[in-house]
Amino acid sequence: MNPVIRQRAPFRWDGIEVEPYKREGTHFRDVSRQVLFGAEAGLACELRYFEVDCGGHSTLERHEHVHAIVILRGAGRVLVGTQIYDVEPFDLVRVPPQTWHQLRADPEHPLGFLCLVDAKRDAPSRPTKEQLEALRTTPELATFIKT
Amino acid sequence: MNPVIRQRAPFRWDGIEVEPYKREGTHFRDVSRQVLFGAEAGLACELRYFEVDCGGHSTLERHEHVHAIVILRGAGRVLVGTQIYDVEPFDLVRVPPQTWHQLRADPEHPLGFLCLVDAKRDAPSRPTKEQLEALRTTPELATFIKT
Repeated sequence: MNPVIRQRAPFRWDGIEVEPYKREGTHFRDVSRQVLFGAEAGLACELRYFEVDCGGHSTLERHEHVHAIVILRGAGRVLVGTQIYDVEPFDLVRVPPQTWHQLRADPEHPLGFLCLVDAKRDAPSRPTKEQLEALRTTPELATFIKT
Repeated sequence: MNPVIRQRAPFRWDGIEVEPYKREGTHFRDVSRQVLFGAEAGLACELRYFEVDCGGHSTLERHEHVHAIVILRGAGRVLVGTQIYDVEPFDLVRVPPQTWHQLRADPEHPLGFLCLVDAKRDAPSRPTKEQLEALRTTPELATFIKT
């Protein structure tokens, strides 16, 4: 691994592959993933860069592991638990364990962010029909949530 | 801990203290530290933001733990091992175990960067007089290194 990896275009790095966010599913839209520091870096965490295109969204999910997020590009909104927050570059977001979360890019801006996770972590789970109905009883969430 | 911590001024965050880089010493110059995600965040790593003012430098040191660095602001140069690299925003730097490293800001630009480390990590060590002499046999390093 070269000690220095240069940004070769905005938010694209030499030798780092732009991957799909997830292998399959229809519960997200227009999201890419780049692993900046993965298992090979020798840390107990992994640092990934995700980018949600204009109008896109990540999966609504929760898990035991924590997300530590640093917004780097564009603008959007983030659901954490039952609150929705506007975010912009260099805002920080922490998603606590077992807390529903979803990130949405603005219609006219992408949303790019670093997401730090433990290398050893559990798989996410998506809401059941009943959990989704419960979340949607809050009108603001009903209009925000994409599934 | 609030799920969202806003940037309130450039590279300054709500409720995050701007601390000295180290408690004491004359082996660094004009460096500040902000812990963005510390032990309380519940991750196996900690994410800190360091800023080296114009012309300043971090300590020349090495340790067993890895540094994963994302440059966020300004411009500068980084020594990793026996190589010096120019860096600018969004370049990535990995410092392998037991590798000498030092970061210097340009004379007219600060150098701000995220530095990711394992929460459980060893203490850094500085070069002995003999190690320093060995590093300084490389002319480029002799002019770069600040102690």
